Amino acid sequence: MVRIALDAMGGDHAPLAPVAGAVRAARAWGYEVQLVGREADIRPALRDQGDLSGVEHLLQIVQAPEVIEMSEHPASAVRSKRHSSMAVGVELVKNGGADGFVSAGNTGGVLATALLGLRRIEGITSERPALAAQVPTLKGFCVLLDVGANVDVKPEWLAQFALMGSLYAEIVLGRTRPSVATLSNGEEEGKGNALLVEAIPLIRALPIHYVGNVEGKDITAGVVDVVVVDGFAGNVFLKGAEGVVATMTELIRQELTRNPLSSLLALGLRPAFRSIRRRLSYEEVGGVPLLGVNGVCIVAHGRSTPLAMQNAIREAARCAELHLVPRIRERLISL
Amino acid sequence: MVRIALDAMGGDHAPLAPVAGAVRAARAWGYEVQLVGREADIRPALRDQGDLSGVEHLLQIVQAPEVIEMSEHPASAVRSKRHSSMAVGVELVKNGGADGFVSAGNTGGVLATALLGLRRIEGITSERPALAAQVPTLKGFCVLLDVGANVDVKPEWLAQFALMGSLYAEIVLGRTRPSVATLSNGEEEGKGNALLVEAIPLIRALPIHYVGNVEGKDITAGVVDVVVVDGFAGNVFLKGAEGVVATMTELIRQELTRNPLSSLLALGLRPAFRSIRRRLSYEEVGGVPLLGVNGVCIVAHGRSTPLAMQNAIREAARCAELHLVPRIRERLISL
Repeated sequence: MVRIALDAMGGDHAPLAPVAGAVRAARAWGYEVQLVGREADIRPALRDQGDLSGVEHLLQIVQAPEVIEMSEHPASAVRSKRHSSMAVGVELVKNGGADGFVSAGNTGGVLATALLGLRRIEGITSERPALAAQVPTLKGFCVLLDVGANVDVKPEWLAQFALMGSLYAEIVLGRTRPSVATLSNGEEEGKGNALLVEAIPLIRALPIHYVGNVEGKDITAGVVDVVVVDGFAGNVFLKGAEGVVATMTELIRQELTRNPLSSLLALGLRPAFRSIRRRLSYEEVGGVPLLGVNGVCIVAHGRSTPLAMQNAIREAARCAELHLVPRIRERLISL
Repeated sequence: MVRIALDAMGGDHAPLAPVAGAVRAARAWGYEVQLVGREADIRPALRDQGDLSGVEHLLQIVQAPEVIEMSEHPASAVRSKRHSSMAVGVELVKNGGADGFVSAGNTGGVLATALLGLRRIEGITSERPALAAQVPTLKGFCVLLDVGANVDVKPEWLAQFALMGSLYAEIVLGRTRPSVATLSNGEEEGKGNALLVEAIPLIRALPIHYVGNVEGKDITAGVVDVVVVDGFAGNVFLKGAEGVVATMTELIRQELTRNPLSSLLALGLRPAFRSIRRRLSYEEVGGVPLLGVNGVCIVAHGRSTPLAMQNAIREAARCAELHLVPRIRERLISL
């Protein structure tokens, strides 16, 4: 059975949310979870989970004395804290003690730790691994990468993102011949910045189903399986979309509570609104895989709830079970 | 009274929507509107507007035999069609026959025509003028520029966008000491791509109220008055936000019509939903000013309705009445 190392100290609600997520993942799917962090913090959080009979043997505490805080500068924190929960968790993946690592901590810290500990897959040349988010769409999910790890991108890197995104959609999300598009400021051939204009011929040469440019509005419409973009614009899109959902939710709340009648009607629609919120929630996916390193690493949202952590653990387990990393490696070698 | 040249041939619903918008603007605010385009097309559209008594003297047809189509390649169309409705409209602004120009046609065509006909304001060095969109927020509107005219941007240009955006917010939107931010992939000092890292010291040196970086989610939250970004990421954000609004609207429609009870409750909430749609609609602003050229130019949405055209005409009139262009020129000289 798959074994996942979990950063028990990462995220705004650590250690409680990671520990609760681990218990839920063990109970739901029988995954083994290594809770990595300060034992003195993890033990009480585990006790808070109530009766652990049936899953206790699946949960193991792995001591790590240091914590990389959310507010720390990633590069220097990673250099100075060699025994952080992130470093120990990544080391477990490296030496085969775990099949994947999950953290809701400082994203820059996870990126730097993973790169340092696991190194790049042979052939990958980007400065950092790519963050591949699943964006909710009308038809399901669209894989968007990079959403923030590499803000100044070379054409060759964008092509590697396209290849890895396509493999991820095929292997982990089960899409047959996933459609891959580049994100641009217009659909027409030739639209785009200098980076795109140079990258597109490289992407066209890859053994993937590349369909051309799409615009920002096409992502949530769900017209393609994978969208490739530099980490700067990808981050602007992802956080922008989060912001629009939050703003629209608030506008709806204001309008629907404007008078007693609308408040009453809205009350009856609560299940419908709950269902919409669930479809747009990051909790359902849980985490974003870091593509390009020699091992499974999932970055979860800093605000992760137990449900989000549980789903991030499942995401890591699926990537491991389906051999995502070796299959990316093979494909890169065969190019 | 202000006189606006209107591209009667521009947009998906031309000439009907521009002509109807002109009639509405003349009736509502007494603006003079020059309908620029093929007289044989404009005359029947004018007749369709019914009784024009009281505004007939405000509406004038200016003959232009050629039309730049939505699908045409802007640069070559502008070169080959010297007598297009865009060229004639921009010429009216140049020679003082009109105080501003409005078009819902091919955006690239308007940009190229305006640049060719009006040239840059002294001191402006960007490849093209910047498109300054007003994004609806929880608190009103946020000016976002550039949203697509310049996809490969130099640090100096970004600083010019910041200055022009600040002046636009102050002069046209009436904001006192508008707050200006750069859009980045994180709020922390030092976050951003190479462009931003180089541009920020230039922006800090300007006589504007610069507040640092914001992220995508902060735009619709309304935390600042003006957000500056390169035209590639700005376009990705703007179209992405449009897409999220459309997707969420569709998800809500699906959920609220899932069963007879929710359909019935939703029916009672129609006025509330209409009000939300209105707050998020581009029609209320109507058009996006093109900042950096020697004259008032407003690009309206290709799908513009008569209401959107009417509001775009008002936007042009306000920019002209408030002397936006001369005031940008003065500020640039005084730097």
